[in-house]
Amino acid sequence: MRHPRVAAPDDATRAAAQERLEALAVPAGALGRLGDLAVRLAALTGELPPPALDGPGEVRLVVFAGDHGVAAHGVSAYPAAVTPAMVRTLVAGRAGVCALAAAHGVSVRVLDLGVDDDLAGVPADVTASRVRRGSGAVHLEDALDEAELRRALEVGREAAGVEIAAGGRLLLSGDLGIGNTTPAAALVAAVLGLPATEVVGRGTGVEDDGLRHKTEVVQQALDRTRDRHDDALDTLRALGSADLAATVGYLLAAAERGVPVLLDGLMSVACALVADAAAPGSADWFVGGHRSTEPAQSLALAKLGVDPLLDLGLRLGEGSGAVAAVPLVRSAAALLRDVALLSEVLP
Amino acid sequence: MRHPRVAAPDDATRAAAQERLEALAVPAGALGRLGDLAVRLAALTGELPPPALDGPGEVRLVVFAGDHGVAAHGVSAYPAAVTPAMVRTLVAGRAGVCALAAAHGVSVRVLDLGVDDDLAGVPADVTASRVRRGSGAVHLEDALDEAELRRALEVGREAAGVEIAAGGRLLLSGDLGIGNTTPAAALVAAVLGLPATEVVGRGTGVEDDGLRHKTEVVQQALDRTRDRHDDALDTLRALGSADLAATVGYLLAAAERGVPVLLDGLMSVACALVADAAAPGSADWFVGGHRSTEPAQSLALAKLGVDPLLDLGLRLGEGSGAVAAVPLVRSAAALLRDVALLSEVLP
Repeated sequence: MRHPRVAAPDDATRAAAQERLEALAVPAGALGRLGDLAVRLAALTGELPPPALDGPGEVRLVVFAGDHGVAAHGVSAYPAAVTPAMVRTLVAGRAGVCALAAAHGVSVRVLDLGVDDDLAGVPADVTASRVRRGSGAVHLEDALDEAELRRALEVGREAAGVEIAAGGRLLLSGDLGIGNTTPAAALVAAVLGLPATEVVGRGTGVEDDGLRHKTEVVQQALDRTRDRHDDALDTLRALGSADLAATVGYLLAAAERGVPVLLDGLMSVACALVADAAAPGSADWFVGGHRSTEPAQSLALAKLGVDPLLDLGLRLGEGSGAVAAVPLVRSAAALLRDVALLSEVLP
Repeated sequence: MRHPRVAAPDDATRAAAQERLEALAVPAGALGRLGDLAVRLAALTGELPPPALDGPGEVRLVVFAGDHGVAAHGVSAYPAAVTPAMVRTLVAGRAGVCALAAAHGVSVRVLDLGVDDDLAGVPADVTASRVRRGSGAVHLEDALDEAELRRALEVGREAAGVEIAAGGRLLLSGDLGIGNTTPAAALVAAVLGLPATEVVGRGTGVEDDGLRHKTEVVQQALDRTRDRHDDALDTLRALGSADLAATVGYLLAAAERGVPVLLDGLMSVACALVADAAAPGSADWFVGGHRSTEPAQSLALAKLGVDPLLDLGLRLGEGSGAVAAVPLVRSAAALLRDVALLSEVLP
């Protein structure tokens, strides 16, 4: 049952777009997934032809940064001290996602929700939204308290509002923070009712021993919180983090505002799963960007009915998989906008 | 053994690019296939960092058009009369590939090698290269005679020269012509020594009965020409067509000139297979764009050691799969050009 605050995409525009697709001067089905995406884009924007999404500032990424208490418990190949360095690199425009975003005309903003560092010298518009330093180690304690959860969700909602007000017509979400695949995998397991063994992957560079340990940590987190798994936001408070909660708020606000979101990797998709569980129908507004090598992402995508456009083995985070997929969304729009109708070319 | 006219990509630049990739401020392997592609692009261009390929006219598509005698023998879901209409739509800039090319800054040129129509009113720069009207029905007769083969190869070579002289640094090849998946599948079968049953697919919309018939036609073509399958260019003359021969010439010239080519679907890849058989080492210069639904393409790609970037179910032809993949090549270049080195961001 659809959540009352989440509207359905525009069925009339979808039908008209499908009709236009079938009237193009191309063989039936020849545009493959780009044809389907173009029709969906029309339904999501209520515009036929769908918008080209190539204007300045129309495609916008927010990267939600935070540290995770579990990172101190051997679940990551990197120390948490890397997180602030990554934030600084991103703020300086020199991170991986910045290179992709510059190449494809995507605006990038980073918000610190819970980095465990004072980030001295980093601009206040990055750090002003911080909810706490780090988040609880989810196998031992709840990630957030009630007030922190509410504040993080609100920061994410406000971020979506800012991006939409700035002209965003397609939003992207990205993640940044050592250890974040552990809470994200735990969230997916909790929402889908799966054991840790089915969801845990290597994150960025975890070896065999680390994988076993990470699985134990996730299972411990699931066992600790089992009585709350039927409430998506309570699960988010228990197993997530400030940055993941903000991402959920961002996705919920986009769905409620009727603005499509191009999803990234595990963190983005885990939050999409939580958002759709909290407000059913939200997933209608989500488009898949890139398939992660993390098993939890594929499980969550399958549940959401989302099939990503790309599968390039990226495991960089930061929203990079979503940004890399942006030109494909533009390709889809261009096909339904610019290809001749059969009626125009028939002799 | 490498053909003497085809140089190897620049190993020293490749090694330096790999070193730079590993020195970037990202976890090892985090850029996935885009990291590998960036290194390869450096080796293919001899430049580190690799060129951004976003300047005007740097990425250029030539669509080789032609009709095929087999189209009159029930192998296609569409009549050959569609070919001239498609040429006109492409010349008018309203075809599928035109929409994609405009969205991604790719120049498009169409060359008529063998359309079976006088194409009245179509500009001479499109039609002046025609080698013949239609090509022989390959299950009954050779597609081309010796002089036609030589001329078609030369047209393709000249086309590559024109595109390179115009500033092309990444070339794309596209196809246009009803019935062309039949000779292309036959070429792949002949070069790989496979029976028709393993290579024939549905092309654009062939049903079950048609598929059986198409398989018989291809097998008949293979049986008719079996004593010539060890000579790639003789096989091309017997089983190909003027447009496919020109595509082979284009690919050979690009490889000889050391300019990388982004491959498209079955026709492009079948010609790449022939080119590499005729001039071993050519495939080093080819990058995979889009995986076709045609089995022959996957077989040829595997033989060439090429793994395409996209798999979107496109079956439009015209070079559309290659054009859709262009932004991913630019993404790869941007990552190796613009991401910070770890040594720059360490505190």
